Amino acid sequence: MQEISHIMRPLILISNDDGLNARGLAALIEAMRPLGDVFVCVPDGPRSGASCSITDSVPLKCWQVSCEPGLEVYACTATPCMCTKLAIDNLVPRRPDLVVAGINHGSNASVNIHYSGTTAVSTEGALQGIPSVAFSLDDNDTEAPLDHLVPVCREIASSTLERGLPFGIYLNVNFPAGEELKGVRVCRMAYSRWVDEFEPCPRSRGGRWYWLCGKQVDEEPDSEDTDLWALRHHYAAVVPISIDPTARGLVEELGIRN
Amino acid sequence: MQEISHIMRPLILISNDDGLNARGLAALIEAMRPLGDVFVCVPDGPRSGASCSITDSVPLKCWQVSCEPGLEVYACTATPCMCTKLAIDNLVPRRPDLVVAGINHGSNASVNIHYSGTTAVSTEGALQGIPSVAFSLDDNDTEAPLDHLVPVCREIASSTLERGLPFGIYLNVNFPAGEELKGVRVCRMAYSRWVDEFEPCPRSRGGRWYWLCGKQVDEEPDSEDTDLWALRHHYAAVVPISIDPTARGLVEELGIRN
Repeated sequence: MQEISHIMRPLILISNDDGLNARGLAALIEAMRPLGDVFVCVPDGPRSGASCSITDSVPLKCWQVSCEPGLEVYACTATPCMCTKLAIDNLVPRRPDLVVAGINHGSNASVNIHYSGTTAVSTEGALQGIPSVAFSLDDNDTEAPLDHLVPVCREIASSTLERGLPFGIYLNVNFPAGEELKGVRVCRMAYSRWVDEFEPCPRSRGGRWYWLCGKQVDEEPDSEDTDLWALRHHYAAVVPISIDPTARGLVEELGIRN
Repeated sequence: MQEISHIMRPLILISNDDGLNARGLAALIEAMRPLGDVFVCVPDGPRSGASCSITDSVPLKCWQVSCEPGLEVYACTATPCMCTKLAIDNLVPRRPDLVVAGINHGSNASVNIHYSGTTAVSTEGALQGIPSVAFSLDDNDTEAPLDHLVPVCREIASSTLERGLPFGIYLNVNFPAGEELKGVRVCRMAYSRWVDEFEPCPRSRGGRWYWLCGKQVDEEPDSEDTDLWALRHHYAAVVPISIDPTARGLVEELGIRN
């Protein structure tokens, strides 16, 4: 009788915020396939800036886009966070060993982490206790080169699968624009501020209308330990992020007043 | 000649995620008015679960709802985060001394902080370097009693105006359901998990549709230092939250591998 191997390959869940047709998604699928079975559940279209938004006011629709050995793809009429929740709760054949997001077209370094739908995927993975990594490229051009990032994403994911991550922590990985990549640096989040965030959107029918726009200003440009410094100097920036943002020191300090 | 007093009253910016007509907004305005001039900029309707979502795909419209001495009210077709950005960038007569959010109808304790549009207002205030407080009530009934919370919100806001907060930290305040309030406790965020998050939404025309639902499970119910413990024991829970979620310890640990 022939022996059947029952060794399961790792299951890797992918989501994103640029939607089903993003080149960054195709690149991330390519990066992950050699590492395990890949399950994709993504928004049906772009959801940039979705943060961890969710809604129970409208139902979501989901459907299988494709299915082949080692790669199953679903799309949903939902935010990145909800796609990730639905996949983990209802769609995957077994509990994922890794959740990865991206590759996002646009930086999610520094304070952008608060607005990002890409990092929301990793937040959700980490909240479920699954090692998670968000990948973003500091270039908003959707045609920007991605091929050189495929092996780097694979290496970071492979290492995360092997070593795991402490509970409640995910990795926010940002790649510099252009094809020069000097290496990978572990960083802290830079403090930056968005300024001049609105421009008038004139309309002949009247009303006060505005477009969101703005510029991001690095408030500590000389600090060499930040993600923005790393990106400006052609390094990939890896920031470990905690899902518990409690300012512990202040709990103790304020607690005295109880 | 008569002397004119030029002492400015503090400017307090209020936003929320339940929109212009929420009772929680009226209660928070009432709580803040004795403390300074109040400037309100809120979504035109409910935006629960909006997190820090933003968009540059559609313009927003804003308009003045009312204006009287000490109280100016604007509404926007935008998320809580965008309302707060727009107010600070373009609408307020001077830089706010305090940003407050709520009172939200529903708990934003524990991991809900990631999904909340209420805490997004405070995140945005803190990102701009302004002391910020988010207020929420652990009761989804929009008719729940709020009068007893007015003096508590006022006291916390007054104390924050007076003492300030460290840069990049805001207070996430949650009130217990019901009218019993034993006191205020400074806490850390409880780790909880949302489970059973989707229910099928059958439709005669077919397709796989789901409603978001779910139950929140406190994963550390015996820990007396968490916000969920405080709420269950009829205390208001105050959690200081950092806008920088970098896991600092891990930066050093992983950094060795550079």
